[in-house]
Amino acid sequence: MKAVRLFEINQPPRLDEVPEPQITGPLDVIVRIAGAGVCRTDLHLVEGVFDQVRGKLPFTLGHENAGWIEAVGAGVPDLQAGDPVILHPQPSCGLCRACRAGNDMHCTGQSFFPGFDGTDGGYAELLKTNVRSVIKLAPGTDPASLAPFADAGITAYHAVKKLVPRIIPGTTVVVLGVGGLGHFGVQILKALSPARIIALDTQPARLEFATRLGADEAFHSARDGGVSAVREATAGQGADIIFDFVGEHGTPNNALQMLRRGGTYSQIGYGGELTIRTVDLLLGEFSLVGNIVGTYNDLAELMELNHQGQVKITAQQFPLEDAANVLHELDAGRIEGRAVLLPPGVRQGRTQPATAGLAAGRA
Amino acid sequence: MKAVRLFEINQPPRLDEVPEPQITGPLDVIVRIAGAGVCRTDLHLVEGVFDQVRGKLPFTLGHENAGWIEAVGAGVPDLQAGDPVILHPQPSCGLCRACRAGNDMHCTGQSFFPGFDGTDGGYAELLKTNVRSVIKLAPGTDPASLAPFADAGITAYHAVKKLVPRIIPGTTVVVLGVGGLGHFGVQILKALSPARIIALDTQPARLEFATRLGADEAFHSARDGGVSAVREATAGQGADIIFDFVGEHGTPNNALQMLRRGGTYSQIGYGGELTIRTVDLLLGEFSLVGNIVGTYNDLAELMELNHQGQVKITAQQFPLEDAANVLHELDAGRIEGRAVLLPPGVRQGRTQPATAGLAAGRA
Amino acid sequence: MKAVRLFEINQPPRLDEVPEPQITGPLDVIVRIAGAGVCRTDLHLVEGVFDQVRGKLPFTLGHENAGWIEAVGAGVPDLQAGDPVILHPQPSCGLCRACRAGNDMHCTGQSFFPGFDGTDGGYAELLKTNVRSVIKLAPGTDPASLAPFADAGITAYHAVKKLVPRIIPGTTVVVLGVGGLGHFGVQILKALSPARIIALDTQPARLEFATRLGADEAFHSARDGGVSAVREATAGQGADIIFDFVGEHGTPNNALQMLRRGGTYSQIGYGGELTIRTVDLLLGEFSLVGNIVGTYNDLAELMELNHQGQVKITAQQFPLEDAANVLHELDAGRIEGRAVLLPPGVRQGRTQPATAGLAAGRA
Amino acid sequence: MKAVRLFEINQPPRLDEVPEPQITGPLDVIVRIAGAGVCRTDLHLVEGVFDQVRGKLPFTLGHENAGWIEAVGAGVPDLQAGDPVILHPQPSCGLCRACRAGNDMHCTGQSFFPGFDGTDGGYAELLKTNVRSVIKLAPGTDPASLAPFADAGITAYHAVKKLVPRIIPGTTVVVLGVGGLGHFGVQILKALSPARIIALDTQPARLEFATRLGADEAFHSARDGGVSAVREATAGQGADIIFDFVGEHGTPNNALQMLRRGGTYSQIGYGGELTIRTVDLLLGEFSLVGNIVGTYNDLAELMELNHQGQVKITAQQFPLEDAANVLHELDAGRIEGRAVLLPPGVRQGRTQPATAGLAAGRA
Repeated sequence: MKAVRLFEINQPPRLDEVPEPQITGPLDVIVRIAGAGVCRTDLHLVEGVFDQVRGKLPFTLGHENAGWIEAVGAGVPDLQAGDPVILHPQPSCGLCRACRAGNDMHCTGQSFFPGFDGTDGGYAELLKTNVRSVIKLAPGTDPASLAPFADAGITAYHAVKKLVPRIIPGTTVVVLGVGGLGHFGVQILKALSPARIIALDTQPARLEFATRLGADEAFHSARDGGVSAVREATAGQGADIIFDFVGEHGTPNNALQMLRRGGTYSQIGYGGELTIRTVDLLLGEFSLVGNIVGTYNDLAELMELNHQGQVKITAQQFPLEDAANVLHELDAGRIEGRAVLLPPGVRQGRTQPATAGLAAGRA
Repeated sequence: MKAVRLFEINQPPRLDEVPEPQITGPLDVIVRIAGAGVCRTDLHLVEGVFDQVRGKLPFTLGHENAGWIEAVGAGVPDLQAGDPVILHPQPSCGLCRACRAGNDMHCTGQSFFPGFDGTDGGYAELLKTNVRSVIKLAPGTDPASLAPFADAGITAYHAVKKLVPRIIPGTTVVVLGVGGLGHFGVQILKALSPARIIALDTQPARLEFATRLGADEAFHSARDGGVSAVREATAGQGADIIFDFVGEHGTPNNALQMLRRGGTYSQIGYGGELTIRTVDLLLGEFSLVGNIVGTYNDLAELMELNHQGQVKITAQQFPLEDAANVLHELDAGRIEGRAVLLPPGVRQGRTQPATAGLAAGRA
Repeated sequence: MKAVRLFEINQPPRLDEVPEPQITGPLDVIVRIAGAGVCRTDLHLVEGVFDQVRGKLPFTLGHENAGWIEAVGAGVPDLQAGDPVILHPQPSCGLCRACRAGNDMHCTGQSFFPGFDGTDGGYAELLKTNVRSVIKLAPGTDPASLAPFADAGITAYHAVKKLVPRIIPGTTVVVLGVGGLGHFGVQILKALSPARIIALDTQPARLEFATRLGADEAFHSARDGGVSAVREATAGQGADIIFDFVGEHGTPNNALQMLRRGGTYSQIGYGGELTIRTVDLLLGEFSLVGNIVGTYNDLAELMELNHQGQVKITAQQFPLEDAANVLHELDAGRIEGRAVLLPPGVRQGRTQPATAGLAAGRA
Repeated sequence: MKAVRLFEINQPPRLDEVPEPQITGPLDVIVRIAGAGVCRTDLHLVEGVFDQVRGKLPFTLGHENAGWIEAVGAGVPDLQAGDPVILHPQPSCGLCRACRAGNDMHCTGQSFFPGFDGTDGGYAELLKTNVRSVIKLAPGTDPASLAPFADAGITAYHAVKKLVPRIIPGTTVVVLGVGGLGHFGVQILKALSPARIIALDTQPARLEFATRLGADEAFHSARDGGVSAVREATAGQGADIIFDFVGEHGTPNNALQMLRRGGTYSQIGYGGELTIRTVDLLLGEFSLVGNIVGTYNDLAELMELNHQGQVKITAQQFPLEDAANVLHELDAGRIEGRAVLLPPGVRQGRTQPATAGLAAGRA
């Protein structure tokens, strides 16, 4: 089958022909990919940021996947070939105490992370995962259109949900960066809380985008990272909570300058560094919170919000073969919302040519 | 093999010869029983309190089990024949949202409850369960001595843990009933919180027992259910929290008379009824909390407390064949702590004759 | 000054002439009443439900008050004569541990409850309270239009906010009774949570009202209290949470029949009784939660929601002198939303005659 | 009266003669100081770390105070001259939403911080504060012996209490630094939680001290900050929670090296800096939590623990005039537990010469 694989650090991934995956254990599941989202983490993998893939090249990228059940192991209940599904990115063991407490991401048993840890991912026609990662969708659902929920969506959901208990009427929340992650952040905040939402971005078009999605105010952050805009909008007090969907280019340290006493900085995007004097951490009584991908239940809850019409995806679809170009466009900041790759067989069944999305993306 | 089974409502269960259970699914586990705890719920099953067993008689009782791995299915990792284990009473599916959120007890998938729902339980030589219910013990552990943690222990742990966030230094907590459940309650409160603990019981010997376990005060509750004793001990204010390990013979309504404004009544024992005027629920701003068996993680945490020496079991061991007599003794209030039944093969391997425990229990 | 006072149990309150209140302590505040809400609790006071007023008759009713600052004591900061204000119903001490933990309602110091505990309330031209109860409104605000937030509003807010941590996308919440309390409940749930809201009422007109306010579904509850409607709407599972804004005429016990395993019943309305077998409380693992009036911060947060346009009042205004008639209309179920009484001086300053509201209410 | 005042940055404070404070407002309280604790923050004030005192020199140091009521304003209930009291360090307004939510430390009204913000503190015979800061002690209590609870105690209590909800049986907690703050930390953890406690210190004598106070293990941290010791003691996983009572000399960054995935770093001591790559914050899903002084209720709860015998003070008493020397000894790490300064009048009434403590401290 066709698969887009990373062969060398600092070289674009490329299309290859690989054997189809096989069911070998009772809980195995094989999914025919409808669409695989393109994530900034794929760029970071290419750049060699992550040590865990060393010695495991080449492998197939793609950790944001949706499709249809192709085959299942003998111990898998309730799933039939053809069922539309979306996949949690990290199949977990279900037996360790972390899994049982709902912290799938900190599974200490037999978990893996296709497309991220050196195991083959979803930039391909078929993907092998396990029963723990599968969420069944309503019959007739188009899985490709939902793929971005599987990683960008739940990461944003996870980060927001963790802080919802700190939000009351009157709480001011800053969403820093309104791209693939942040555009989910604004909608999820709106759905789960009464927060006053201030969006910041360096691209003027995204400020309008943010307002359309539900932000109460949106400011350009090019000059001083948005610090003075947020200070002004909060009578000099600063924001109660900041979600940093960028996490690089100085955003972490800027964020601390716009945080109110007792406030919380939540980091989702990454790449940069954060530095703070302990006396400032103390006087501000700040909390700084890191976030990894969300849990299976986070994804299930997010699908429910989508079903209710409260959270929508802005995405563009591209042919799988075009993966390297799409990553390049993403790096250049020219994707609105999220990009999704469609394997050849899937595209032919669609009424609209997927290249329409591509063309727009490249304009 | 030998098994003690319930044949008819309102008739004592009796020993029978039944076929050994077999592995049929990849996640099945068969355990050789070392000991099975005897629970007031077994009495209630005999009395016909529970509808779910109708049409399923006869079945083997026993939902508080520990032993050694006998055989496992093809998809079960990390367990070998001979491993000592304790069993969560309700094997759950691990795939539904309740299981994934740590609420195993509200599993909406393929769960069952051996010895309680008509499925065969642990008053037998072998028990069939699944991988999700198994907690591996340290090599060399004597499982029979730990069995009472598997139901009485985690039920008490579950109830206490739920309310720990409401306990601060100065909080007064009443433990109502210091039998098989309550003797765990006192110790767990002591281990997890800074509560001031007041124990109530109708049997004088149990007041001393409670104090030995860590209660700060212990009062006889025969006269007015302990209401005046608790009122006096709290300067007329009442207790902040009451754990009702009895739940019958008037304890629920008495408990409400000794509850402070803003207080919480937590019910674990059952059999009786609770009645309250809504105006009193409002003026007291009370919370009334029901509790079902604890979760797998509750059991794992409780085993950790036991390992640290913070929670110990008071129990007496009896031969499996003697089940009906033991239930009768329990009904008569003549068991201190918890009774445990040992199948024939197990007893022969023990250095002390299990009948010693039995004799004491009957004195 | 004019005041409407309760002279005898089971007799309608009547208009009287009483001396004006005076500042006597450094934290005293006197407020010129703009409007005082009429509450079912006033009916219950007339009926003699509450013991605390015995020996204190006559006294002025009215515990849901808003107006303008008239005079303040020497230790009161930041308040000037003429400032528009809304009043928390229970002036609290601010020094006890309950007050300091935000549980003003369980104040163990010098608190009182004008219009409810025998102290004079706001069915009058002037009211004496203390600095702790005052929320300053924006200059130019019409206090009379906001009065119902001061008791009905915060009681609903308090009850809902307490359970928001139990609501996730997919959670089904029943609002039982869409009158003065419940019409706030629907809006507050919508503003604070992603709940699916099912409203129940015995009056068909209120079902439409509920839907207009944001309920997802609304069912007539005359037949079986709404039990079958809720069961059907939840695939037989029952609702996760029920807010009972009625609390009498059998609603508490009906509510338990429509509650899902692990669910929570929250009681706000009162007058009836609740009965449950402990085995059912256990098997359902239910929580039953009483609610008293909300806190000062609850009221401040609710005013913020109102300011954002998320929670609005449906109310009708009547002359103070008409208090007895209005109570009669309320008892007959002929008030939509909440009734507010306006003292003579206030009414003359209004552009619309208050009798317009009255007329509508009596149609 | 006598007072020890800071006249110049980088110069030791010195004894002076100043006018006695006077009651001017209805909520004012004047306290005759029994003892004032000496804190590392006093050293930082001398060093000029804090901007808020610029332009306010000279002022009297001392923010950890206990004594007897000397005089009260007209609006102060329940306090009589001679009552023994301990003082929360920051008198707050009691009216803002932060105060009402129990976050006294983030008071946005009329609060001040004697001995820290340029207002006169307790290194003196008398101190002026307000009613909101006073905790009444049992008649006959020796306030001087309790003074260290007023700042070091509640700061440790506040930090620990915030994280208690993250501690379950099996949770490993590191206490970094067992001096004036950390020696409270160990005891409070023991009283409030079932944590396994690992203490780290660079001084061997303090490891024994920690074990005596309840630490399960104690390691010398001179070599690599304790990183390898903690890693070894946790099977390579790292600790779940780290309380950094030092916050300088590299402890913050060392702490991050010994933190488990999903773990929490809590900072109490200060002076240094913390740096972390956002990718590490993400992959570890860490939380970093700053802590300022605790709340009034924290202090009340801590006094309750002390009353129960669960938290004790290790302290040495010195004459007030000796303040500069004591600060020097503290800087040199030669104080075990906490130092307390006693004004002249107080010392004369004591049966043991305070110089005994002094002598020991200097040995």
